[in-house]
Amino acid sequence: MAKVVVVGSVALDDVQTPFGEVKNALGGSAVYASIACSLFSSAGIVGVVGGDFPKEHIELLKEKKVDLAGLEMRNGGKTFHWKGKYGLDLNNPKTLDTQLNVFETFSPRLPKEYCDADYLFLGNISPKLQLSVLAQMKKRPGLVVADTMNLWINLQHEEVLEVVKQVDIALMNDSEARLLFKTSSIVVAAREILKLDSKIAIIKKGEHGCVMFTDSKHFSCPGYPLENVKDPTGSGDSFGGSLIGYLAKTNDFSEENLRRAIVYASCVASFNAEGFSVEKLRQISIKDVQARYKEFEGFVKF
Amino acid sequence: MAKVVVVGSVALDDVQTPFGEVKNALGGSAVYASIACSLFSSAGIVGVVGGDFPKEHIELLKEKKVDLAGLEMRNGGKTFHWKGKYGLDLNNPKTLDTQLNVFETFSPRLPKEYCDADYLFLGNISPKLQLSVLAQMKKRPGLVVADTMNLWINLQHEEVLEVVKQVDIALMNDSEARLLFKTSSIVVAAREILKLDSKIAIIKKGEHGCVMFTDSKHFSCPGYPLENVKDPTGSGDSFGGSLIGYLAKTNDFSEENLRRAIVYASCVASFNAEGFSVEKLRQISIKDVQARYKEFEGFVKF
Repeated sequence: MAKVVVVGSVALDDVQTPFGEVKNALGGSAVYASIACSLFSSAGIVGVVGGDFPKEHIELLKEKKVDLAGLEMRNGGKTFHWKGKYGLDLNNPKTLDTQLNVFETFSPRLPKEYCDADYLFLGNISPKLQLSVLAQMKKRPGLVVADTMNLWINLQHEEVLEVVKQVDIALMNDSEARLLFKTSSIVVAAREILKLDSKIAIIKKGEHGCVMFTDSKHFSCPGYPLENVKDPTGSGDSFGGSLIGYLAKTNDFSEENLRRAIVYASCVASFNAEGFSVEKLRQISIKDVQARYKEFEGFVKF
Repeated sequence: MAKVVVVGSVALDDVQTPFGEVKNALGGSAVYASIACSLFSSAGIVGVVGGDFPKEHIELLKEKKVDLAGLEMRNGGKTFHWKGKYGLDLNNPKTLDTQLNVFETFSPRLPKEYCDADYLFLGNISPKLQLSVLAQMKKRPGLVVADTMNLWINLQHEEVLEVVKQVDIALMNDSEARLLFKTSSIVVAAREILKLDSKIAIIKKGEHGCVMFTDSKHFSCPGYPLENVKDPTGSGDSFGGSLIGYLAKTNDFSEENLRRAIVYASCVASFNAEGFSVEKLRQISIKDVQARYKEFEGFVKF
């Protein structure tokens, strides 16, 4: 059985960056997160695709030992489609088109065997759906990590706060944290997250790395100094998937191990940005990740 | 005699941030840099002011043991005046007004005793003036650090490149590094800096800290997690001044000591952002800086 249940979007993306473009490429928060997770622990995906979803993508997920019992196939519909474009500032893509398709009426239903999972990753989907997944669990998982995005903070502000309240690790971008709590300081935003009952706040900052806030400590992890970024799409999801994958593998939620998890997750996220879609993510092995982890040790030592 | 010669602007600033405002407040790259430097080593300032420059500012600089032999006083003119406004994103101020005044015809003239200084900080002024200062040195200083800004990269591109070529440590913001070499990657920009003969490239990233690139190594220093930023004006200059001040004090240019210098400089820069003008910078002591340095050790350990 899959150790980590990953809920989120499964998509076909058109992405343009200054360094190239892809069309109908495999994407979606659950896809990036589950493939990244599989570097450390087995993942099971909960999502929905349409009849146009290519068989080769299913094969790729199977190759990565991602369990597909929770992947709903609606042959009569079309897969969620996102079209985005990045400028030279690779931190903020411009959404050119979003076609929800089968995702519009998606309501995640967990396979029975997922309902007592120990590790749950609530990838970037509507907070209402994230809450519905939490409600389906027979027992509270040992660790729940949730991601979100600005769209939901704007549309379903209260529900995003409710998710933050119910999970152990709240994950979001710096701009999203600022938006959620209407502050210019991510330190203030992180304190608000902790006040809401999340044990841990992790604020992702794209190429600048990320910071973790717990009650008493602050950890800062730099971004990997990438020379050839191709497409940052999915790097945040890859970060989240690797983070919970590493924690599931080690089953240790100490400050020290959380820090290690964050560095591993940063390594995986940085690899992801070096290729379009899941191109790079599918190629790398745990050895590649470990080599980059070693490099990180040298980056911060003083 | 002052150990570190600091060249740059001396200004009276009007600054608005979401957290307050000041008018005719002491500012300028040479002021921030020399006060910050004085936490570690004695500084001598080279700059120009008009007859309107308040005596109390002179007293403050004297109190910080900043040598004023190179501070030109033009009683008939007015001091350089900058007016800027910050939004909730505190990284990029909007310039509302710039009055060059006496700065328009400023041509730095080094006092004789400064011409064989061992440490030279070329703060943010026109690269032509930076080069004219270098030309006045009787011997090549042991360490030259130069800062710049986007204005000069746009107006005097070749001269900025010439400065980078001639100095030991080239210091700039990430957006400036991208602009100077027309790339989206600060890693690529840093490599170009090193190719131009600067031994060391330090890219400042505001609240995200900074990164140092040398031929073989990469160091990343996080930003201090500030809860109450008031005014980031001069934090980059404070960073530069503390950096050269610490290096002058220790006279050790090893990778390890450069890293320590960067962390000390980050501490001082973070203090600076906690007050308007030089308000905070004038209050702190080396003990405050050392306490924050200890905190940084905890921020990055994994």
